[in-house]
Amino acid sequence: MAKPTLEFWYEFASTYSYPAAMLVEQRAAEAGVEVVWRPFLLGPIFGEQGWNDSPFNIYAAKGRYMWRDLERICAAEGIAYVRPSVFPRNGLLAARLAVAGLDEGWTPAFTRLVYQANFARDQDIADRDVLKPLVTAAGGNAEAAFEQAASDGVKARLRDHVDLARSRGIFGAPSFIAPDGELFWGHDRLQQALDWVIKHPTREFA
Amino acid sequence: MAKPTLEFWYEFASTYSYPAAMLVEQRAAEAGVEVVWRPFLLGPIFGEQGWNDSPFNIYAAKGRYMWRDLERICAAEGIAYVRPSVFPRNGLLAARLAVAGLDEGWTPAFTRLVYQANFARDQDIADRDVLKPLVTAAGGNAEAAFEQAASDGVKARLRDHVDLARSRGIFGAPSFIAPDGELFWGHDRLQQALDWVIKHPTREFA
Repeated sequence: MAKPTLEFWYEFASTYSYPAAMLVEQRAAEAGVEVVWRPFLLGPIFGEQGWNDSPFNIYAAKGRYMWRDLERICAAEGIAYVRPSVFPRNGLLAARLAVAGLDEGWTPAFTRLVYQANFARDQDIADRDVLKPLVTAAGGNAEAAFEQAASDGVKARLRDHVDLARSRGIFGAPSFIAPDGELFWGHDRLQQALDWVIKHPTREFA
Repeated sequence: MAKPTLEFWYEFASTYSYPAAMLVEQRAAEAGVEVVWRPFLLGPIFGEQGWNDSPFNIYAAKGRYMWRDLERICAAEGIAYVRPSVFPRNGLLAARLAVAGLDEGWTPAFTRLVYQANFARDQDIADRDVLKPLVTAAGGNAEAAFEQAASDGVKARLRDHVDLARSRGIFGAPSFIAPDGELFWGHDRLQQALDWVIKHPTREFA
C-alpha cells in the first residue's frame, strides 16, 4: 500500500522553513509518511496582505523575537545556524530550480542545501554561482537545470504553486497540508501534521 | 526555597490566550514553577503596529486558520470551545478587574472564568452583568472590585503592565517570560517556557 502523504510548502526566504526543511523527511519517515515537496513564493501572497517586505522586518518586535526563537529551535534540533546578514534573500531563482528538480527527484536535497547556504553559511541564494554547485551536489545537471529554470514551463508551474497555495488557504511558510486538506502552519506544527496524516490518510474527494 | 516563576502575559480578547489560561497553572505546578499572572492590553501595542483591529480580522486567511487551529487545540486539550459570535470582544473592564484582584489572589480563577465566558459560552465580557458573577465565583467582592477597577490606581497599574510588556519585547499574546527575561510567544510555547525556567530559574540582574 502506498504511504500517506504530507505536502510541505516552503519558501526559500522563510526563516522557519529552514528547520522544517532539514527535519521533515526524517520525521515523516519515522511516521511512515511520504513528503510531497512544494516550493512556492510568499511574495505575491504577502503583497496581497499589503506587505512589500517580510513582516519580520515590518514589525520590529516580532522580528527580534523570531531571530531568537529560530536560534533556540536550531540549537534544540542540532541544526547549524548563522543569522544571515541580509534578510529576506530573494529565493525566486532557487524556487524555480527546485521546481525544475521535482520530476528528476533532486529537489529535497537541493532544498536543504539552499537553506543551509542562506541560514548556516550566510550566502546569497539569488547568486547563480552559489546555486550551481548545490544543484550538482543534489544530483542534478546544473546546466540543464538553469535552462529549465528559465523556461516558461517551470515559471508557470511555480506560479501554479502560488495559486494553489493561496486557494488552499496558505498565508505563511512553512505550511503542511494533509491529504484531506487540513492545513498546519509553522515548523512547530510538523509533528501535529504528521499525526493528522496517520489518522486521515486519504483524500476526502478522490 | 521559593519556586522559580514564569510570567504569563495575557489579553482577554486573545484567542490563543484561552487555552493557555486554562492550562498554565496545572502545567506549571507539574513543572514545579509558580505562575505570575500578568493581564495586559494588546490594543495599544497593535495600534503602534498600524492595526486598529485584530490581525486575524485584517488578514482573512490567517484568521480562518486561527479559528480552525484553536478548535483543534481545544479538542486536543479537552477544553470546551464555542466560536464567539463577536471577535474581538473588548476586554478592558475585565483586564482592570483582573488587575484589581491580583493582590487579593482571585485573579487566576477570575481569568479562567472570563475566558470561558468569551470562548465557551459566547458571552459579552465587556458587560458588567456578565463579569459580576465571575468576580464573586472567583472569590472576590464584586462591588469592591468594580470600584477598584474604576480607580486611578488600577487604571495606572494596567497601563504600567502594557508599558512593561512593550519594554520586554512583547508583541502578542499569550506570552511567557522567564526570570532571566527570555520571551516565549504563543500557547504552543508553554512547555518550552517551563523547561527554560527550570534551567534558568533566577533573575540575571538581582
